[in-house]
Amino acid sequence: MSGLPRPLRVGMVGYAFMGAAHSQAWRTAPRFFDLPMAPAMAAVAGRDPARVAEAAEKLGWQSAETDWRRLIERDDIDLVDICSPGDTHEEIAIAALEAGKHVLCEKPLANSVAEAERMTAAADAAASRGVFAMCGFSYRRTPALSLAKRLVDEGALGPLRHVRAQYLQDWLTDENAPLTWRLDKSKSGSGSLGDIGAHVIDAAQWISGQNITGVSALLETFVKERPVGGDFVGLGGHGGAEGPKGAVTVDDAAVFSARFDGGARSAGGAGPSGPIGVFEATRFALGRKNAMRLELNGSKASLAFDFEDMNSLWFYDAADEPNAGFRKIQVTEPEHPYTGHWWPVGHGLGYEHAFTHQAVDLIEAIAAGKQPAPSFADALQVQRVLEAVEASAADESRWTKVEGA
Amino acid sequence: MSGLPRPLRVGMVGYAFMGAAHSQAWRTAPRFFDLPMAPAMAAVAGRDPARVAEAAEKLGWQSAETDWRRLIERDDIDLVDICSPGDTHEEIAIAALEAGKHVLCEKPLANSVAEAERMTAAADAAASRGVFAMCGFSYRRTPALSLAKRLVDEGALGPLRHVRAQYLQDWLTDENAPLTWRLDKSKSGSGSLGDIGAHVIDAAQWISGQNITGVSALLETFVKERPVGGDFVGLGGHGGAEGPKGAVTVDDAAVFSARFDGGARSAGGAGPSGPIGVFEATRFALGRKNAMRLELNGSKASLAFDFEDMNSLWFYDAADEPNAGFRKIQVTEPEHPYTGHWWPVGHGLGYEHAFTHQAVDLIEAIAAGKQPAPSFADALQVQRVLEAVEASAADESRWTKVEGA
Amino acid sequence: MSGLPRPLRVGMVGYAFMGAAHSQAWRTAPRFFDLPMAPAMAAVAGRDPARVAEAAEKLGWQSAETDWRRLIERDDIDLVDICSPGDTHEEIAIAALEAGKHVLCEKPLANSVAEAERMTAAADAAASRGVFAMCGFSYRRTPALSLAKRLVDEGALGPLRHVRAQYLQDWLTDENAPLTWRLDKSKSGSGSLGDIGAHVIDAAQWISGQNITGVSALLETFVKERPVGGDFVGLGGHGGAEGPKGAVTVDDAAVFSARFDGGARSAGGAGPSGPIGVFEATRFALGRKNAMRLELNGSKASLAFDFEDMNSLWFYDAADEPNAGFRKIQVTEPEHPYTGHWWPVGHGLGYEHAFTHQAVDLIEAIAAGKQPAPSFADALQVQRVLEAVEASAADESRWTKVEGA
Amino acid sequence: MSGLPRPLRVGMVGYAFMGAAHSQAWRTAPRFFDLPMAPAMAAVAGRDPARVAEAAEKLGWQSAETDWRRLIERDDIDLVDICSPGDTHEEIAIAALEAGKHVLCEKPLANSVAEAERMTAAADAAASRGVFAMCGFSYRRTPALSLAKRLVDEGALGPLRHVRAQYLQDWLTDENAPLTWRLDKSKSGSGSLGDIGAHVIDAAQWISGQNITGVSALLETFVKERPVGGDFVGLGGHGGAEGPKGAVTVDDAAVFSARFDGGARSAGGAGPSGPIGVFEATRFALGRKNAMRLELNGSKASLAFDFEDMNSLWFYDAADEPNAGFRKIQVTEPEHPYTGHWWPVGHGLGYEHAFTHQAVDLIEAIAAGKQPAPSFADALQVQRVLEAVEASAADESRWTKVEGA
Repeated sequence: MSGLPRPLRVGMVGYAFMGAAHSQAWRTAPRFFDLPMAPAMAAVAGRDPARVAEAAEKLGWQSAETDWRRLIERDDIDLVDICSPGDTHEEIAIAALEAGKHVLCEKPLANSVAEAERMTAAADAAASRGVFAMCGFSYRRTPALSLAKRLVDEGALGPLRHVRAQYLQDWLTDENAPLTWRLDKSKSGSGSLGDIGAHVIDAAQWISGQNITGVSALLETFVKERPVGGDFVGLGGHGGAEGPKGAVTVDDAAVFSARFDGGARSAGGAGPSGPIGVFEATRFALGRKNAMRLELNGSKASLAFDFEDMNSLWFYDAADEPNAGFRKIQVTEPEHPYTGHWWPVGHGLGYEHAFTHQAVDLIEAIAAGKQPAPSFADALQVQRVLEAVEASAADESRWTKVEGA
Repeated sequence: MSGLPRPLRVGMVGYAFMGAAHSQAWRTAPRFFDLPMAPAMAAVAGRDPARVAEAAEKLGWQSAETDWRRLIERDDIDLVDICSPGDTHEEIAIAALEAGKHVLCEKPLANSVAEAERMTAAADAAASRGVFAMCGFSYRRTPALSLAKRLVDEGALGPLRHVRAQYLQDWLTDENAPLTWRLDKSKSGSGSLGDIGAHVIDAAQWISGQNITGVSALLETFVKERPVGGDFVGLGGHGGAEGPKGAVTVDDAAVFSARFDGGARSAGGAGPSGPIGVFEATRFALGRKNAMRLELNGSKASLAFDFEDMNSLWFYDAADEPNAGFRKIQVTEPEHPYTGHWWPVGHGLGYEHAFTHQAVDLIEAIAAGKQPAPSFADALQVQRVLEAVEASAADESRWTKVEGA
Repeated sequence: MSGLPRPLRVGMVGYAFMGAAHSQAWRTAPRFFDLPMAPAMAAVAGRDPARVAEAAEKLGWQSAETDWRRLIERDDIDLVDICSPGDTHEEIAIAALEAGKHVLCEKPLANSVAEAERMTAAADAAASRGVFAMCGFSYRRTPALSLAKRLVDEGALGPLRHVRAQYLQDWLTDENAPLTWRLDKSKSGSGSLGDIGAHVIDAAQWISGQNITGVSALLETFVKERPVGGDFVGLGGHGGAEGPKGAVTVDDAAVFSARFDGGARSAGGAGPSGPIGVFEATRFALGRKNAMRLELNGSKASLAFDFEDMNSLWFYDAADEPNAGFRKIQVTEPEHPYTGHWWPVGHGLGYEHAFTHQAVDLIEAIAAGKQPAPSFADALQVQRVLEAVEASAADESRWTKVEGA
Repeated sequence: MSGLPRPLRVGMVGYAFMGAAHSQAWRTAPRFFDLPMAPAMAAVAGRDPARVAEAAEKLGWQSAETDWRRLIERDDIDLVDICSPGDTHEEIAIAALEAGKHVLCEKPLANSVAEAERMTAAADAAASRGVFAMCGFSYRRTPALSLAKRLVDEGALGPLRHVRAQYLQDWLTDENAPLTWRLDKSKSGSGSLGDIGAHVIDAAQWISGQNITGVSALLETFVKERPVGGDFVGLGGHGGAEGPKGAVTVDDAAVFSARFDGGARSAGGAGPSGPIGVFEATRFALGRKNAMRLELNGSKASLAFDFEDMNSLWFYDAADEPNAGFRKIQVTEPEHPYTGHWWPVGHGLGYEHAFTHQAVDLIEAIAAGKQPAPSFADALQVQRVLEAVEASAADESRWTKVEGA
């Protein structure tokens, strides 16, 4: 490498779970990948002065701000990384893009389609000026899912018949788990649907190369009221059964069937009709901790993935018949996406590595002056699916077209 | 044992896949279980004289008949075992019951709710005379599923939140697999829905102790025409791509969401609402050969089963937390349902053993003068779910109540 | 089928666990396979008149004898099936062969090499007269292991490097499990070594196509005394901790390393040296119920099997790299050994099916006038490995050549 | 935390695979754990000026040195982290300790027992002056193995019967994989035995709380010569089959049986005899990429682990019988070792996290003035087992006592 790479000075908004993951990514990316720009952890923003200062030190940011607007005003910030709750995304992202800052925005992109549309318009406008926006569907960068995408793109699966997508967690099973911001619709937009369902919607559309065109859905809130306060442990925790309770205003579980557009985008080829999808997102699947699962059945091959065994991709190739079987590919080979930059084969990666890969891909796109993926438009499409799901659930599960499909 | 047990003389209609399984069951049951009546394989009926004679010899039946009506006329037949296609069930079963013969009828009970209702009325009338009818949902007698039922009945799971039920096969993935009677609606009633979906509907209702009250459904026929004739291999085969084709008149895949009745019947206790169900049946899940899968998530414990590993039941008990995990119970212990009659622990059983257990339970019920389960009424309830699924699919997936629920 | 096949009239000695398995095999074989001879269950022999009569009725034998010598005298017996303990094998087998009866003898062939040598000599002499002997290493006929053998024979694995063989059970873990004949060296010859270790030795040699040439071994008896009497449950049970105890005279666990002969017999090709083997047999592996496991690592492919998931064979093919992985082949395809005679794909078989396949292969060999496998000579080779293991264990684990290797 | 923690200034020797892992650990530890001292990445040492400078920049070290002696001379280095090959460990470690630097030394501690003894003597002397040495058996800090240790210490397993330990890799399966320093005995000390076998020896002794007292062993070098040079990929690669070859002077595979001391150290209780161990380390287990596996069978419970699924621990508790089964514990709960500092449940960790945990534990021990574990004495014990294995293999596998046992 001749000369030092240009810096990419990052300002991050929010410093909770996602903030910690993004911080680790910015810090780690240049240590394992050769990057065309050097990320610098310039500033982190949060409202509480003491807590944001502590977070800056802990997470390794050079400075702290108590108003995200300061990040946008500062000349020494090139990219704004939005890790705050969904109800803040629109304002921050649009302001940042208009100020010429690149944007990485956590998912779901917004709490409504209208917000997402305005954000996408702002992103499109910015892109024409070489300022780029990306949405943080980080699971795309899990090596096993990246390999799944590659196999589909290569045509290995042939026309798709089925997409089976689940995101199963169990941290609300306890009826006295406390009421958190994630259960407040005004903050989070939706419950399991937007929080985890959005991940599998994005992954299913991205890997299949097809958009969802319509859905039939059911939403359920099993526990209508929960204790205010309580001991938080992980995402959930244990509330006091005796104390005051507040209303849960989001879904505990979301299930829907879907049709895909048949895939002009798919290298597998466009059959007369696309696959049928079955989606499920829940926080009540006792024993399933982070079971983000995808299964695609094509005419030539099938794929299956479960994040609880995140370094493996299961692949069934009909060409192997009669001695075919789902093979457990350990996605740790030098030839596999991302993994050659890390450890020898069989030495698995963890959850946060996908964030590092996301940072790498974003830096490379910005340096090359190209639109990173997923774009805000990609995320808007997910948002439209979420909206269709809610509309169907509110209308006796009736089949509901996804806007624009 | 002092004295010989009374005989139970069986006449079987049909001798294909199901006929072979039932024959093995009647032959094997008295060798491993102490039975109150001694099953005798008296006669098998089929239309083709040469083929039914050959089947009688091969499968071990003492005589052959070319008309099922002869079985009903014969004095030396106590029970009629119906293994012929669904469009024949009503006539045979009602005639047999009216003639005072006990009946074991393969599933699905009938090709329509109207048929099933008439059959159930006949069964109820016969029961009052000590003549009993049972429907052959044999999977109930797979030891792992019987253990699942026992655990739910004991209250181990607590209130249920989710039922996840799949029956995935792949024998129609090849677009040139031949057109068989299973793809002809006039013979089979429906496709994957009635053939394999019915199994998971019955299993889910039986194990949960709850009925499905409503559904939202989608049916799909991926391949609309298939070769007439061709080489049959297993259930599917390879047709000639060049020859004449005929229309597929049944579904290739069926998916639906469901609600359960909350379970007055469930020992787990009746919450204000029952669990949400997600069901899928397909013959296009490439690589899944006989993946009859059930997962129940309760508030205290969860269960998971996959027939492709049929001797295991996975059980997650929240009481084990923080060192909880799905345990792979090998359902081969002497204390487990049925298994103590067979081999030492860890020496697994196979597919046909459930048929033997079904024969055992039926014989014991008849000898005791008690109604065997599943009754025709139980099977009628499954039929009503199938009907609701078809109605919803025909009405834009709109939520559809199950009749009688 | 024109004309009736010749009968093969069987007389069985012993009617416990193995007797029940063999009975089911003789009864079932003609129902699923087209056989050149028709097995008839002519007589069963045991010492206790009442119990053998009851067993005959229960297991379906036409007559009972209280002395095995009567089976040999009877003209209407063509084959003697020896299911009694190992200390009786030599006398019965030699007498039967000399009387012109074919013999199927349970494993281990004998309790000593000397006995096995005399039996092999008798078998060789009989074979020259068209009278055949076979040893019941039934696991060879488990379809997944038969497929493993086929793959090795086809050269799919290339030169072998490692054989990993375990047979893990846990029914002696309880220190008060009762003293049974299996723990009495005078009856059983050895403990885990001969009972279950013999199975994996045979399987490893047969599948690899190579003989073991030398071993280094360790034997251990963890619990030296056990209660006399007690409640038997399965193979083990629960004795009274308070009552009298007797000495355990066999090994509880056996472990040894081995070298193979490099495989002139192996289609995989003979490298300059054969693979290294690691063997373990124990009844103290708590939680492992019947984990009969084999793993072969070749230069081109690897295989893995565990009887606790008996319908699957795991196959890793280096030709699939970099997207290789162990594939879980469901050994239920029509093209797989034996399975096409049973159920559709994915409808697994159970433990006893291997006995049926053994009966089929034996009947076909006899009808064709060919030596069935495994021969007594094959079983003698296993016996010599057992002897070398015991010799090495008694001599500070020193490397010990297998006789004749 | 009031005030800034004291720094712990680290100087690292070597910057290859292990150097990258250690660098990531020093960088990451303070971001997720509250540490009593603040690690500073002061300097990295290597012989090639250009390459070490590049490594310093890439891996994030503040300065570079071309002689490890400079690290020892520098006043601003508190700890020397030795990541160079085994033949360099003794000289560096002893010099560092004598200079008052704490030492973290990669495993295996040395290439001979004599070296390890001198290092241990130096460590003991240093410890009396508050200067500490630790050996980098990093797998101990994999959360699942830490939980295994905790369960054994709590007595959950009862007296142990079996230890089954494998470390299976496949990167030498290709006969033309190139000759690297890992295949040169003068550099690496041994092959699979010391490289990966040492890991499972340490883990087995540490978790069981028992030392190995004797062994019977077999070593094998399947491929005696390999190409000099070639394309390195991961640990292995593809050499030119045509070019010059050099001798492989280490073992390709090592297998041995072992006895343990019965465990005065074990909370599980000291039976009259300890468990039997079966160990295997190989680089020829085609398809096994990093299968570092342990299974412990006790009288009350069993444990199983495979690094290829590193976030899970399988646990069988006999108290669950008859519904017992190996439970797949996802070791990601807040209550589990280390994991509460990272992500929500079910969001797994990767290979390098164990190095971060190692750094954390080392920093805490140094700050507390306590001996970190594993000490050099612990590593010396592993070295003595390695020596006994080599001695036994050279003496016809004869049983060989471990020195000091």
